[in-house]
Amino acid sequence: MNEHVFDQAIALQMQADGSFAGHTSAAYANMVGPFGGISAAQMMQAVLLHPQRLGEPVSLTVNFAAALAHGPFTIVARAARTNRSTQHWMLEVLQDGATVMTGTAFTAMRRETWSVDEEAMPTCPPPDQVPGGEGPIPMEWIKRYEIRPISGAIPKVWDGSGDSSQTRLWMRDCPARPLDFASLTALSDVFFPRVFVRRATLVPIGTVTMTVYFHADSAQLQATGSGYLLGQAQAQAFRNGYFDQTSQLWNEAGVLLVTTHQIVYYKE
Amino acid sequence: MNEHVFDQAIALQMQADGSFAGHTSAAYANMVGPFGGISAAQMMQAVLLHPQRLGEPVSLTVNFAAALAHGPFTIVARAARTNRSTQHWMLEVLQDGATVMTGTAFTAMRRETWSVDEEAMPTCPPPDQVPGGEGPIPMEWIKRYEIRPISGAIPKVWDGSGDSSQTRLWMRDCPARPLDFASLTALSDVFFPRVFVRRATLVPIGTVTMTVYFHADSAQLQATGSGYLLGQAQAQAFRNGYFDQTSQLWNEAGVLLVTTHQIVYYKE
Repeated sequence: MNEHVFDQAIALQMQADGSFAGHTSAAYANMVGPFGGISAAQMMQAVLLHPQRLGEPVSLTVNFAAALAHGPFTIVARAARTNRSTQHWMLEVLQDGATVMTGTAFTAMRRETWSVDEEAMPTCPPPDQVPGGEGPIPMEWIKRYEIRPISGAIPKVWDGSGDSSQTRLWMRDCPARPLDFASLTALSDVFFPRVFVRRATLVPIGTVTMTVYFHADSAQLQATGSGYLLGQAQAQAFRNGYFDQTSQLWNEAGVLLVTTHQIVYYKE
Repeated sequence: MNEHVFDQAIALQMQADGSFAGHTSAAYANMVGPFGGISAAQMMQAVLLHPQRLGEPVSLTVNFAAALAHGPFTIVARAARTNRSTQHWMLEVLQDGATVMTGTAFTAMRRETWSVDEEAMPTCPPPDQVPGGEGPIPMEWIKRYEIRPISGAIPKVWDGSGDSSQTRLWMRDCPARPLDFASLTALSDVFFPRVFVRRATLVPIGTVTMTVYFHADSAQLQATGSGYLLGQAQAQAFRNGYFDQTSQLWNEAGVLLVTTHQIVYYKE
């Protein structure tokens, strides 16, 4: 079996000094530099591969400090604090000795407790009743995802007519791939910028920071397999060059796997 | 005029090596260690005081890696990347040479653009029509805030009867103090843990990570002055030891100042 394109993209080699060497992936190229979700997944993968890692990811924050150049990069992942059942990571991605991303992660050994999902999955038609396609979007990374927009799709006409930034869609890797923490990190960033939907206007944008909260453990990811995820995204405020984007990802069984937040720069 | 207790609590002295020396504040003591909001405010203050700082805070992520001991601490704030109008910070708080907090921050020079608040302030009675008080809560830091709960207050009876984690309240520093980025950071953490509300059950808890998105700039904070903020907080998922808490803070004029998110550990 050939290696999945996502696994090729997140492949990292540990170096003698404990850092990881990686390379940007042409398959996940964005307009400028790589798709942010794949860069975030690479940072997550450095923690997942680290021999000192304790437990599973609970939170990840990545900051996009500069546009990554296509080519090699180095990820430095340091366990800043290791407790009995939890661990805190400081992360940095370097290109040519300069910082291009920063981040932190929190991992923990989870135990079964009282649990409840307060944010219920919205009622939506099942994936096989929703046609695919996001329209004519030129970025290469979009082809790595199967996206079935339910509501709040990319506007067909840029006429400034938007009045809500909410989007709902089904999505999964293309070709399908069993879900894990790295792919879930990337899927958390698949939503196109909320400002496009709210304004029905194209403006230059770029994510500057993203935080992912993993509610699911590896058993729940395994149970999700290569099924579709229902994604919902909405902004709370657009203000003087930056807007937020808050999202939820459920599996088809209605389990909330991830809640995620980001701040996106926009011009004009 | 005497210095406000909050200003005393966030006072930092720059050291010869560029780090900041601070001290925990008995006035903001929590059950164990200090109120997380004051620790987050101290980290924010290190960035605000740093001579290399460019622009104003847009996002801050703090991770609580260990319970802070009452006493001195050192904050290391490093500008990992400085661009033309944006800057990325890596943050670490140390006690006795061990990491007790980690974090990242993003600052930027903002320009006026098209702007809109999508998350409107909910209709609530004005602060002068809402009686104060959060009931008999023993923590010292609670006395540093004037809190007027509108809905979803701390349960009076711990009978396991809860069915929603949503809280709305008016709040401000006590005594009143003009709002700035440091105090807004602390106010973002004033909400008591969502699990108490949802379950009407007291369980051991502790915040492990918090992210604050500042939609307001310093002019909007100045316009807010020492007025009340309307805070709204709600969980999206409680799962095997960790729940999330997502919040919005508006000023009395209805401007969304901050959206914030955290992951909280809970036992049982």
